[in-house]
Amino acid sequence: MINKLIKNIEEKDAPVVVGLDPMLSYIPEHIKKAAFDKYGETLAGAGEAIWIYNKGIIDATYDLIPAVKPQIAMYEQFGIDGLVAYKKTCDYARSKNLVVIGDIKRGDIGSTSEAYAVGHLGKVQVGSKSYAAFDEDFVTVNPYLGTDGVKPFVDVCKEHDKGIFVLVKTSNPSSGEFQDKLIDGKPLYELVAEKVIEWGEACMGDTYSNVGCVVGATYPEQGKILRKLMPKTYILVPGYGAQGGKASDLVHYFNSDGLGAIINSSRGIIAAYKQEKYSKFGEAAYADASRQAVIDMIEDINKAKGEM
Amino acid sequence: MINKLIKNIEEKDAPVVVGLDPMLSYIPEHIKKAAFDKYGETLAGAGEAIWIYNKGIIDATYDLIPAVKPQIAMYEQFGIDGLVAYKKTCDYARSKNLVVIGDIKRGDIGSTSEAYAVGHLGKVQVGSKSYAAFDEDFVTVNPYLGTDGVKPFVDVCKEHDKGIFVLVKTSNPSSGEFQDKLIDGKPLYELVAEKVIEWGEACMGDTYSNVGCVVGATYPEQGKILRKLMPKTYILVPGYGAQGGKASDLVHYFNSDGLGAIINSSRGIIAAYKQEKYSKFGEAAYADASRQAVIDMIEDINKAKGEM
Repeated sequence: MINKLIKNIEEKDAPVVVGLDPMLSYIPEHIKKAAFDKYGETLAGAGEAIWIYNKGIIDATYDLIPAVKPQIAMYEQFGIDGLVAYKKTCDYARSKNLVVIGDIKRGDIGSTSEAYAVGHLGKVQVGSKSYAAFDEDFVTVNPYLGTDGVKPFVDVCKEHDKGIFVLVKTSNPSSGEFQDKLIDGKPLYELVAEKVIEWGEACMGDTYSNVGCVVGATYPEQGKILRKLMPKTYILVPGYGAQGGKASDLVHYFNSDGLGAIINSSRGIIAAYKQEKYSKFGEAAYADASRQAVIDMIEDINKAKGEM
Repeated sequence: MINKLIKNIEEKDAPVVVGLDPMLSYIPEHIKKAAFDKYGETLAGAGEAIWIYNKGIIDATYDLIPAVKPQIAMYEQFGIDGLVAYKKTCDYARSKNLVVIGDIKRGDIGSTSEAYAVGHLGKVQVGSKSYAAFDEDFVTVNPYLGTDGVKPFVDVCKEHDKGIFVLVKTSNPSSGEFQDKLIDGKPLYELVAEKVIEWGEACMGDTYSNVGCVVGATYPEQGKILRKLMPKTYILVPGYGAQGGKASDLVHYFNSDGLGAIINSSRGIIAAYKQEKYSKFGEAAYADASRQAVIDMIEDINKAKGEM
C-alpha cells in the first residue's frame, strides 16, 4: 500500500493529506439544518451532518490530494451513528482513488491487536464467509505495549497489502513527558524508531516500508534526526498549520528523493472558510475554501522543498 | 465511580472482573446457528451471536461479580454490527448494576482525547441536546502521549463521576520492551505511575482515586513495587488464569485494607466450558460453567488474600 500512496503523491505532486476531523462547530449551518430536519438533533443527525460535510470536502479536493486521514475519535464520540459516518467517509474516499489513513491509534496485547488489525486492515471470518469491516488502507498504531502489540498489525499488512504508521514522536505539547526521556543517552522515541525500522524490514514496498511512523511537525529538530535514522520509513507528519508547524521546518522530514514524508492538515483545510484568508468564500461555499486551502498548502510545501 | 466499584466489590466480597472478550470460536454452536439463521453468516449475524452469548454470561454471573470489562477490539473487528453488540452488552451489564469497564486503550492529543472521553464517559452535544454515546463507567487509557492526552479523560471523569485505568505495566510478554527501560535508574512504568498519582489527586473518591492503573498479573514483582508507590490508586490486573498469573502472586496487588486491586479473567471465565475442569457442563450450559468458574476464581483469590 505504501507503493500506492507514493504513486498518488507523485502523480498529484502533493505530499499532503487532508485530516477529516470534523467538529460540529466547523459544519456550515445549512448542512446541520438539513440533517437535523431529517433526523432531529440526535446522534443520527450529527452523523448525517458529518458525512455530508465530508463528502463536500472530498468532492472539492480529491483531484488534488493523494490521501485523507479521518480521525476516528471525532466520529466515535457520536457512538454508532458517528462510526457509520466514519465508514461512509472511508468508503467514499476510496471510491475517489484516495488512500485512506485511519487515525485510530490502536494498540493492545497480541490477540487483541490482532482483532484491531483484522477489523481495520484485514478480513474477519464469520462462519464460511469473510468481511472487511472498516477497510482503511493504513492505520496509526500506538507502540507502548511493545513488539507483540504491533506485530499483528504488520502480519495483516503483509497479507492484505496494507500499511501502518506507528507513533514515534507526537505533535502535542506534552509529548516529551515520556517520549523524550533518555534511556542510555537516547530518547525513548529513538528506541521506538529503531523498533519501527525492524518491524518495517519485514514488510517492504518497492523503496519504502509499509510500516511508517508519526513524527509531529512541531518538533523539527527531532524530525531531522529521525529522517536520517530511518531512511526507508515514510513519516506521517501532523501539526502543520493550526498546531504551529511551518513549511520551512518540514523540509527536514523529506529524503533527497523528494519523498519520505506526507504532511497532514486538518482544521486548516476542512474549516478553511472560517479563516479570514478564505472568508470571501462564505459558509455556503465552504468546500471551495477547502480546495483553495489545499492548493495553497501544496504550493507552500513544494516551494519550501524546492529551496532544500 | 471508584466509590461504586468498591461498594460492589465489598458487597459481593469479590475483587474480580469478568472480561467479556468474545471470540466466535468460544460461542456455542446453538447460539451461532440461531444468529446465522436469522441474519446469515454476516457481520450482523456475528454481532447477534456475541450479544446473546454475553447476555447468557451476564445473567449467570451478575449476582456474584462487581463489574465486567468488555474488550472493544473483539467487537470492533466486526465493524458497526460488532459495536452495536458492544453497546448492548455495556447497557445490559449496567442494567444489572454491574460497573462497566470499557477496555478501549484510547489516547491521543488533547482535543482528540477529549472526543474519546466525551464519547465513552461523558456527553456529546448535538445542537441543543446532549447524548451519552457509549456510556461506560470506566475506560482504559494509553499514556504514551503524556499529560495532555490523559487530562481530558480526567476532566470528564470529574464532571460525570466516571473513572479511568491508565496503562502502566501491561501483561504481555514484550511489555518490558519500552515500559521497563531505565530512565535515571527508574523504569518508564514508574515514571508513568508517578504521573498517574498526580492525575489521580485531582479526581479522588472517598479513599481511592477515580484514576486507576493497569498492572499485569504476569509481573508480580513490579506489582509489589507499584502497590507501595501508589497507595490510593486502584489497580486493574489482567493476566490471571489463561495468561499465567497465579492467585498467590496477586496478593501483592492489594493494600492492607483488602482493597486496591480488581483481578480480571476473560477466557478462563467466558470459555470455561471448553476447559476439562468444567466440561461436565457441556456446551449448552456454557453459562453455568462460567458461573462455576467465577465462584472458583473468587474463592481462589480470597483464599490467597486470607493468607496475606
